[in-house]
Amino acid sequence: MTRSIGKVRTQFFEFHNRKRPFQLRLGPVLPRFTLAYEMYGRLNANRSNAILLFHAMTGSQHAAGLNREVPGLDGRWTDEMHEGWWDDFIGPGKALDTRRFCVICANYLGGCYGSTGPASVNSDTGRRWGPGFPVLRMRDIVDSQMALLDHLRVRRLHAVIGASIGGFLCQVLATRHPDRVRIVVPIGTGIETTVLQRIMNFEQVTAIEADPNFQGGDYYDGPRPDFGLALARRIAHKTFVSLDALRERARNEVVSQKPPFGWYEMRHPVESYMLHQGEKFVRRFDANSYLRILDAWQWFDLVEESGGQDMHELFGRCRKQEFLVFSIDSDLSFYPSDQARLVQVLKRAGVPCMWITVHSEKGHDAFLLEPRLFTPHLTQVLDRFST
Amino acid sequence: MTRSIGKVRTQFFEFHNRKRPFQLRLGPVLPRFTLAYEMYGRLNANRSNAILLFHAMTGSQHAAGLNREVPGLDGRWTDEMHEGWWDDFIGPGKALDTRRFCVICANYLGGCYGSTGPASVNSDTGRRWGPGFPVLRMRDIVDSQMALLDHLRVRRLHAVIGASIGGFLCQVLATRHPDRVRIVVPIGTGIETTVLQRIMNFEQVTAIEADPNFQGGDYYDGPRPDFGLALARRIAHKTFVSLDALRERARNEVVSQKPPFGWYEMRHPVESYMLHQGEKFVRRFDANSYLRILDAWQWFDLVEESGGQDMHELFGRCRKQEFLVFSIDSDLSFYPSDQARLVQVLKRAGVPCMWITVHSEKGHDAFLLEPRLFTPHLTQVLDRFST
Repeated sequence: MTRSIGKVRTQFFEFHNRKRPFQLRLGPVLPRFTLAYEMYGRLNANRSNAILLFHAMTGSQHAAGLNREVPGLDGRWTDEMHEGWWDDFIGPGKALDTRRFCVICANYLGGCYGSTGPASVNSDTGRRWGPGFPVLRMRDIVDSQMALLDHLRVRRLHAVIGASIGGFLCQVLATRHPDRVRIVVPIGTGIETTVLQRIMNFEQVTAIEADPNFQGGDYYDGPRPDFGLALARRIAHKTFVSLDALRERARNEVVSQKPPFGWYEMRHPVESYMLHQGEKFVRRFDANSYLRILDAWQWFDLVEESGGQDMHELFGRCRKQEFLVFSIDSDLSFYPSDQARLVQVLKRAGVPCMWITVHSEKGHDAFLLEPRLFTPHLTQVLDRFST
Repeated sequence: MTRSIGKVRTQFFEFHNRKRPFQLRLGPVLPRFTLAYEMYGRLNANRSNAILLFHAMTGSQHAAGLNREVPGLDGRWTDEMHEGWWDDFIGPGKALDTRRFCVICANYLGGCYGSTGPASVNSDTGRRWGPGFPVLRMRDIVDSQMALLDHLRVRRLHAVIGASIGGFLCQVLATRHPDRVRIVVPIGTGIETTVLQRIMNFEQVTAIEADPNFQGGDYYDGPRPDFGLALARRIAHKTFVSLDALRERARNEVVSQKPPFGWYEMRHPVESYMLHQGEKFVRRFDANSYLRILDAWQWFDLVEESGGQDMHELFGRCRKQEFLVFSIDSDLSFYPSDQARLVQVLKRAGVPCMWITVHSEKGHDAFLLEPRLFTPHLTQVLDRFST
């Protein structure tokens, strides 16, 4: 029997260290930053039962249970944020069983759900960071969360789990901090940014930056670049669903046939479905955060992030870990061939590794929507080692 | 031995008939319009050796030879337009042998290379059509070219050939005017608009219409919506090349690393390659024409266009024709599975049909770049029937 974990709240970790400030990969240093995070379950006495969960690009720290309010987010904590995005996976009796494990999930540094990001006020200036927020790399997101783990006195994670670009973060953690994790579970991800991703990410960057409301990122006192951000979201969204599923969903989710602007008349439910996806999204996300995270995706370079010779040397550090790699056969964001490359490198480097392809009609988003496809293997690998 | 056909010029067919004006599928009627067209080779005595060639979405009437000037195009006849886009396929000794055949190619109605379109002056008002230009459907493009054939006194075509959405036009012609063509050659096309195409077309529509310079299509007296049109082109362009080829091309065609606007810094050659593709394109194309043709693609419905019961009945009209269908294995704009559907319908309807897949690393654009892959079968089918 599984149960929901009920009401939860977001906590805030305040990093503040003038003597040893946080070093961003491309500089500068940050003497202080905040991470918004949630925890489900309890740390055991020797703090060996923690599972760190990385959210995907536009996710949040709120992975499980019900959370109706996170303060100070300018209305971005919309209704669709209230239920945890992995609620079907986390709780008593679920894949990440909170009777045994303590699950930790933090909003990315640079994000917009309570962690320090471009929409946050810079305490040095009293004004929002805006376009002056530093350039982020995947390593920075990982390392900021290692500081959170230090704060929680979690020396070694039982597991780290992440889907989509959250899977990039898993790999950075595993190779950059190999002694700090036992089990690594990348889902629907890759070992590098593909050329198709690079092109579509660039489309999204330019769609946002060309919105006249974007104003170089300095838009917080005026209208938001909603159109550019919505178009960016639509460009990405088509890769998250399977196209068959999208055709199906569109039947049930027609919202408006009214053309939003210009000459063109929308007449197909897929168009209004996509438009609706964009409109829903801009209410809950900040364009500058989106750009920062896209940029980190665009320039993800595992060897650089983790500081190594090459992939082989990098993963050679992981021989005491256990990898469980998931592919989704209908994934159009990270194709199964992308996971195949990761598995190839793992095997060559002698890393214990299991690779499972789940068959779903839901595309990339299957990692959110189909707990039954993932739960047995997640349970098995998490139970295989004592905590 | 093949030869180039040398200098050519664009001719203009003026339709003008107040008594029997041209009927657009969705209305209204046009008492007059112009089609820009070119001819290569000579019509024989009984005018039975004509091949009609449909260009792709942003192509022109200038398929072969050298044409340095087409008047009245506001600078859109850029250097890259001067060489015919199928010059390697058309000429003495080439696949479309101009010693035997007379090749005719016309700019789409609604286009921007000399045929009546949104950028043309409406003789009734003395002003440009702009956003008031009527809605177009694929049938209108085909029927306007049938009027040109009437004018040239070509009763029956030896063949019709078209790639990409030019292949849609082939199918409309073949099913709507089955007695007027002998051989039908659709290349890298489909029988319908796929959901992925629909989504990407819609992205492009909204990218153009949201450009503040677009002004609802009424931009001819001010700055052009270059940014929106360039983004639209980039969204489409990634489907025309193979991604491997694109990675390769990007190495040789880096133009600028300077960020065009905003915060993001371009650092990868694929980004500057894509940006360059967009910039090049806006110099040679009109945004309103682009929208009109996209719209016709979006709403392509063969059964509606040709007026029939269903696909089976429609293609049942084509049993006296001969189809040669080409697929390109690396095509990301129209996947080989799209041609498979066409071939399936043809076979069920009892239409003589040959299906050839060419293997190329150049993606959709292979139909422009790899004449050797297409020439033998084109030659065979064109020679198989007397003219």
